[in-house]
Amino acid sequence: MNVLDIDCATTAEILCGFVHDEITKVAFQSAVLGLSGGIDSALSLCIAARAMGPQNVLAVMMPYATSSPESEGHARLLADRLGVRQSVVDITPQIDAYFQRFPDASRLRRANKMARERMSILYDHSVAHSALVVGTSNKTEALLGYTTLWGDMASAVNPLGDLYKTQVRQLAAYMGVPQVIIDKPPTADLWAGQTDEGELGLTYAEVDQVLYRMIDLRWSPAELVAAGFDEAFVTRVFEMVKGSQYKRRLPLVAKVSARSIDRDFRYSRDWGH
Amino acid sequence: MNVLDIDCATTAEILCGFVHDEITKVAFQSAVLGLSGGIDSALSLCIAARAMGPQNVLAVMMPYATSSPESEGHARLLADRLGVRQSVVDITPQIDAYFQRFPDASRLRRANKMARERMSILYDHSVAHSALVVGTSNKTEALLGYTTLWGDMASAVNPLGDLYKTQVRQLAAYMGVPQVIIDKPPTADLWAGQTDEGELGLTYAEVDQVLYRMIDLRWSPAELVAAGFDEAFVTRVFEMVKGSQYKRRLPLVAKVSARSIDRDFRYSRDWGH
Repeated sequence: MNVLDIDCATTAEILCGFVHDEITKVAFQSAVLGLSGGIDSALSLCIAARAMGPQNVLAVMMPYATSSPESEGHARLLADRLGVRQSVVDITPQIDAYFQRFPDASRLRRANKMARERMSILYDHSVAHSALVVGTSNKTEALLGYTTLWGDMASAVNPLGDLYKTQVRQLAAYMGVPQVIIDKPPTADLWAGQTDEGELGLTYAEVDQVLYRMIDLRWSPAELVAAGFDEAFVTRVFEMVKGSQYKRRLPLVAKVSARSIDRDFRYSRDWGH
Repeated sequence: MNVLDIDCATTAEILCGFVHDEITKVAFQSAVLGLSGGIDSALSLCIAARAMGPQNVLAVMMPYATSSPESEGHARLLADRLGVRQSVVDITPQIDAYFQRFPDASRLRRANKMARERMSILYDHSVAHSALVVGTSNKTEALLGYTTLWGDMASAVNPLGDLYKTQVRQLAAYMGVPQVIIDKPPTADLWAGQTDEGELGLTYAEVDQVLYRMIDLRWSPAELVAAGFDEAFVTRVFEMVKGSQYKRRLPLVAKVSARSIDRDFRYSRDWGH
């Protein structure tokens, strides 16, 4: 048995219960999420639809001019099948309006701007439709820092944030995500032919084996190498996790008082009310 | 003596040291921040300029069509005086491109979209100029939830996040923020005549007295009332702080593993390397 194997029935129940409880306990009834056509948002949508009922879920597709029409097709396929509400908001006008000033901007800058524009649109829909934003980013991406800070990492409730990509695949199959979405190579869909694994220079299958031992089991790099993992690969993964720590925390605040936000003052339950 | 009085010389030294240390320890030399013409970003700019040297600081002004020209004038006045680099990026084209689809969108939706667009632009400048984003939001705003999640609350390092508005005013005077900026009524500058205190229905001077006792001194609402604070006002402030807790934390993630991000796995120093 693979260490990353999960009990899909139990996990699905936990995640649907989590989404339902967190949304309803703040007196909301609806969920909104960005649907890209990829496996992560497809799984989040399945969870949200089961948790809240499909009529209470709004899937927003936010293509850019260069996005693959195939991606939107996959998104629609799933949204139609589940019977959730759908909206398409083209982000091209806003993105192009900004980069007219900076025509030489790199791919990275454009990718980040798009991710943050999508976040901004989802939160606008959150207010307009009284719906909480359900997150779609997984643990592998978050640990590697393969994510845009205040962009795709931002949400109100995220059912996938503690699942490795390998586990997302298992659960997606269990929850009925169409096979065509599960089988295609993961991509941020920023340019033709882009794949996550090509850009990262690693496969999710191998990096998840290292991450699981490094984070969940607290193995040191030396222990990983002793167990047979390639040293250069382990070092690279370790550095990626360390170097992206800033993407997994709130802004650093200078502490000058007795009780600082996110340090001493974190929870409303601190008050005992 | 007022409980909110601070030792300005010491506080300035701590905050400048904080900004300098946090930026240089990740091998950056520069800071970028959004300059609105208001007192908070003016103070942050003074701190950043003293911490990094004015030549290493970029102040970005991001007006919308309805922003007051006076605000931009105040921003320029300070930026010129300090000798920092300046850039103006009009956000009108991006904002209007989006709301063409939603012409009936409320003021709240427009205000949030603008705050997130400004964050997105600052982070784009962060990459383009190899500069960290210095935050400009204070403790009063953060506690009351008078802020846009993933908008003005987002930054890399925030020197003001542990200072109440009353304390921002003291320190701004000490650090030489122009008197015209200190004296004008705080405003988000979203429509003509808007003021923070008018919109919130309270004054910073009175709410800071309650917040300081409630948060820093851990007084209960009953203790505040017993000390002579108005009961309805105390209750209202308490509810505002409780109701905005979600704006002071990372997305809620369903815990399904042994070590979840931001729960068990928070610090790179956990690894002892």
